[in-house]
Amino acid sequence: MAPLAPRSGDPIVANVERVNAELFTLTYGAIVRQLLTDLEEVEEVNKQLDQMGYNIGIRLIDEFLAKSGVSSCVDFKETAEVIAKVGFKTFLGVTASVTNWDADGTSCSLVLEENPLVDFVELPDTCQGLYYCNILSGVIRGALEIVSMKTEVTWVRDMLRGDDAYELRVKLLKQVPEEYPYKNDE
Amino acid sequence: MAPLAPRSGDPIVANVERVNAELFTLTYGAIVRQLLTDLEEVEEVNKQLDQMGYNIGIRLIDEFLAKSGVSSCVDFKETAEVIAKVGFKTFLGVTASVTNWDADGTSCSLVLEENPLVDFVELPDTCQGLYYCNILSGVIRGALEIVSMKTEVTWVRDMLRGDDAYELRVKLLKQVPEEYPYKNDE
Repeated sequence: MAPLAPRSGDPIVANVERVNAELFTLTYGAIVRQLLTDLEEVEEVNKQLDQMGYNIGIRLIDEFLAKSGVSSCVDFKETAEVIAKVGFKTFLGVTASVTNWDADGTSCSLVLEENPLVDFVELPDTCQGLYYCNILSGVIRGALEIVSMKTEVTWVRDMLRGDDAYELRVKLLKQVPEEYPYKNDE
Repeated sequence: MAPLAPRSGDPIVANVERVNAELFTLTYGAIVRQLLTDLEEVEEVNKQLDQMGYNIGIRLIDEFLAKSGVSSCVDFKETAEVIAKVGFKTFLGVTASVTNWDADGTSCSLVLEENPLVDFVELPDTCQGLYYCNILSGVIRGALEIVSMKTEVTWVRDMLRGDDAYELRVKLLKQVPEEYPYKNDE
């Protein structure tokens, strides 16, 4: 039987190959700048970042499941904890906290105090509508879709917009039957 | 006095924040795809990747000098060794070998057997002229320009084009007087 989901990112973090965070941050900044130049409308840039994140998420989940020892989570609550404590730690080196659950346990917030994507970033006045980190919402949405959870992921707080933290609202829309690529044959 | 250049990347690697290599690889892939969509001409994509790399290199050198303990290198030969053994290790987690010096010590090759940028990548037939990793040549060119070395950096071998390794040719064009931002006041 596959092991249960671990509660901390640490054992996994040691397993994976890593690159310098500043290189990643600057490379991500280069994408955003490129999109701002090419697409002009900030709203289009938000969409494109989300779509890029989605495409990354549906692939990144493979590595995550393969290396983390996480198999199926019991429910959406456990899933949110795994994203916050193991997923963020594995991929970005930081952890999020899970807060603000709604009554029926289908919406929660992931709160990041630290965010390596935004080091050295200041938004010019012309980019006020930009969700600079929108790739993250796409990654989460994409990754969860592969494990059968259709979600909506939106920004509630954003430090680049003057808030005191980064807060992503994750809302479970529906849980679809598991088909691809993880059939539970065992 | 600042310490001499270390010969291995290891002491530095421990110092820096890191993110997951696959996340970086997929994010870089998203840039290349975006540029191919937006710019159409492969030659333009090569130019843009090189320019992005240059913009990253002129910033990344700051972190490198601050955290590596590397100060000024004696000559271009030592510089090439530091890029290959410390720079690549610090930022990408791999090392390069320095080979094929010309007689006057102003051109050499950096050879990479492993390259985290290209994991999972296969070039479609429509992209045959693409230098997928062209951001790397730009990073090296940009970083060296900040430490007063004007260089030309070109690809000689590329595994995505069927070669047996990645080989970057680095040619020192001229060494300019050091002005910005590292005056040697000590």
